[in-house]
Amino acid sequence: MKHDINDFNSVSFYNKAGFCGRVGFGDRPAILVIDLAEAWTNPENTLGSDLSSVVTHTCTILHKAREMNVPIAFTTTTYEDELANLPMNVQKKVPHIVELKESSPLVKLHPSLERNPQKEPLVKKPRASAFFGTNLLAILINWHIDTVIIVGCSTSGCIRSTAESAHNYGFHTIVVQEAVGDRSVFAHKANLFDIDARMADVVTISEVIKYLDSKDINK
Amino acid sequence: MKHDINDFNSVSFYNKAGFCGRVGFGDRPAILVIDLAEAWTNPENTLGSDLSSVVTHTCTILHKAREMNVPIAFTTTTYEDELANLPMNVQKKVPHIVELKESSPLVKLHPSLERNPQKEPLVKKPRASAFFGTNLLAILINWHIDTVIIVGCSTSGCIRSTAESAHNYGFHTIVVQEAVGDRSVFAHKANLFDIDARMADVVTISEVIKYLDSKDINK
Amino acid sequence: MKHDINDFNSVSFYNKAGFCGRVGFGDRPAILVIDLAEAWTNPENTLGSDLSSVVTHTCTILHKAREMNVPIAFTTTTYEDELANLPMNVQKKVPHIVELKESSPLVKLHPSLERNPQKEPLVKKPRASAFFGTNLLAILINWHIDTVIIVGCSTSGCIRSTAESAHNYGFHTIVVQEAVGDRSVFAHKANLFDIDARMADVVTISEVIKYLDSKDINK
Amino acid sequence: MKHDINDFNSVSFYNKAGFCGRVGFGDRPAILVIDLAEAWTNPENTLGSDLSSVVTHTCTILHKAREMNVPIAFTTTTYEDELANLPMNVQKKVPHIVELKESSPLVKLHPSLERNPQKEPLVKKPRASAFFGTNLLAILINWHIDTVIIVGCSTSGCIRSTAESAHNYGFHTIVVQEAVGDRSVFAHKANLFDIDARMADVVTISEVIKYLDSKDINK
Repeated sequence: MKHDINDFNSVSFYNKAGFCGRVGFGDRPAILVIDLAEAWTNPENTLGSDLSSVVTHTCTILHKAREMNVPIAFTTTTYEDELANLPMNVQKKVPHIVELKESSPLVKLHPSLERNPQKEPLVKKPRASAFFGTNLLAILINWHIDTVIIVGCSTSGCIRSTAESAHNYGFHTIVVQEAVGDRSVFAHKANLFDIDARMADVVTISEVIKYLDSKDINK
Repeated sequence: MKHDINDFNSVSFYNKAGFCGRVGFGDRPAILVIDLAEAWTNPENTLGSDLSSVVTHTCTILHKAREMNVPIAFTTTTYEDELANLPMNVQKKVPHIVELKESSPLVKLHPSLERNPQKEPLVKKPRASAFFGTNLLAILINWHIDTVIIVGCSTSGCIRSTAESAHNYGFHTIVVQEAVGDRSVFAHKANLFDIDARMADVVTISEVIKYLDSKDINK
Repeated sequence: MKHDINDFNSVSFYNKAGFCGRVGFGDRPAILVIDLAEAWTNPENTLGSDLSSVVTHTCTILHKAREMNVPIAFTTTTYEDELANLPMNVQKKVPHIVELKESSPLVKLHPSLERNPQKEPLVKKPRASAFFGTNLLAILINWHIDTVIIVGCSTSGCIRSTAESAHNYGFHTIVVQEAVGDRSVFAHKANLFDIDARMADVVTISEVIKYLDSKDINK
Repeated sequence: MKHDINDFNSVSFYNKAGFCGRVGFGDRPAILVIDLAEAWTNPENTLGSDLSSVVTHTCTILHKAREMNVPIAFTTTTYEDELANLPMNVQKKVPHIVELKESSPLVKLHPSLERNPQKEPLVKKPRASAFFGTNLLAILINWHIDTVIIVGCSTSGCIRSTAESAHNYGFHTIVVQEAVGDRSVFAHKANLFDIDARMADVVTISEVIKYLDSKDINK
């Protein structure tokens, strides 16, 4: 990530304090597509904003990943229709969450992602991190993954949380700058800075495509 | 639990080694009903055995719990219909698992349990422990629970695993002797012994009913 | 938290999108003191900055908590002296971490906190969140806690991560505005905004003291 | 594992119910040595029994693993000296646990294991499973491990719990028959049966040595 010194004025300060190191790519990547579903991608919805560019860049990455046999997992955030499994503190803090019922069209993935249900799992997650309260970690370990490439939304919520979990669990963690988005430009920038400083390498889509081009993991 | 000395001949030995202590009941119980679904309760099925007595005793406990406003959660074990979220090592170790697709009648709860979907969550779990890869722990903490009362099946699998997780997380953990069952009498007995020695108080249903009778947690 | 509209210009926007709700205090609080150790509180150190005001406010809260028998837990971040348990990705991303050896004076708590080792655990954590790779969650559940009050540093790192974990696990989660700090004023503000929007109520120290005054949890 | 049909009389029954499958070895193994410390290996101690054969077989495996650059991690169970981080329910259930203070000689590894602290981490765990409340999972993921080979004690406690966690997280999980032990012969046999049926391949030491001989993972 090229840090914009006018926005943050603190990269050198962070480097001096021992942040912002590079982890780099590993050998066995997976793509993690976070919450590119109707609730977030349609600006008409409570949670929605214009993420059309994020969706387009994600589709470019998915196309390359499928060509190279790199595994893919998707997430959506959802609860039982009656919300009996939605803890009250979560409902109070982020009241929009009551809309995310499992039979609602809001939690359906954007159709342009063209998920293949035979081999690309849809992880139904109850919180921001794709790893919290889900089976995702076991899926990745079973695939022998060492590198998690994260795309989707929102940068200041589910992307940051998922990147932190992946980093915590010992993966090479990559966030793709053009393929993550947020309803707030400010929150997007501030959180990309923290992500790059603390938990993941923020890289350009061209770096990711170049990397994937060398990584047919079934070969 | 009254240990059958003829079966195990080792209670005094275990006591001397510092096992088999009593934790006792706490103040705020919840009932956890493990996997009393078609796959396990119908003896016609691959995984099934005669658990009619376990179901009957569970219904007795549920009736009392609902009377006293003690919260209840249910589990079933299930995967995506296409099994994309089923790790291959799990499929290889326990091949029956491929039958547990989310739209299959096999994963539906036994109707006599009469779950109230408005307030009794159905936790869809991917492994033996009800806490692994699920939102259950957050639900219990949000309910301010300190005591987990476990019923259902199978003693040597999901009951033991769930009891161990509840114990690990710091709950008073109770397993109800007459309300848990297993396809193997031998495995049932051997695991109840280990459970009582290491992770939960194994108690009779009459003790549990007496306790619940004093515990209207909404009062 | 009173949001500074000039800084963020987006509270009404966030409210409209269903963020920034209030969870409020529950009935059984614990105080969580994050990483107020030499490495962070002494400005001479790589990671250090002037947190004297944070330490002072924390001591005020600890004094009140001890008076009211509200339990307290402390954390520090540390690894084996030989760093064999430090994953390489973590070392590469945040190179300062190699200084945090368990026998180093850097990981010792600030003496003014006056931890009572008989009943106030010191949780040695390997990552930002106090809940990751530690026994903390079980300790809190065993204490029958429903409310986690978080103080310490750094707002953009361990405080945010710990608040998110506490929120995820179903606790009423409270971050005390004057008792958390960060080496970067910018990161402090941007992250307090996200914390209040998504995972915890950010409150003043006077609100916390007033609440604790009513909460002798042993009574 | 060759099941002893006279002991259990149920292997064919279990096979028919879809248990006891083979997972097999993967490509990148690690050795996990569970609790071979003074408290368990010295028969004079409360928790101790004669595990000399287990220690000898473990040393044979460690010798081969070091020769082949296969990574190794050790565990011991331990709490703060003042026990402030020991949940009361755990203390009540297994009262021997109060002896396991971090500065006690009881928690020190058996000297014949010859741990190399520069690269073989010692994971201090608070419960039976080596994965609960520890950093172990991240260490294994960071090492790009897909196969966990488990040795040590006790079969009915920490070995079974650790094997279940490793299985849950998606690893090829292997338990070495001659290199795990228990104070109770009965519990040892009953739990090896369950382990092989549900969560890990129970194999002979000669199979493991043969496998390791082909696996210099640095090559």
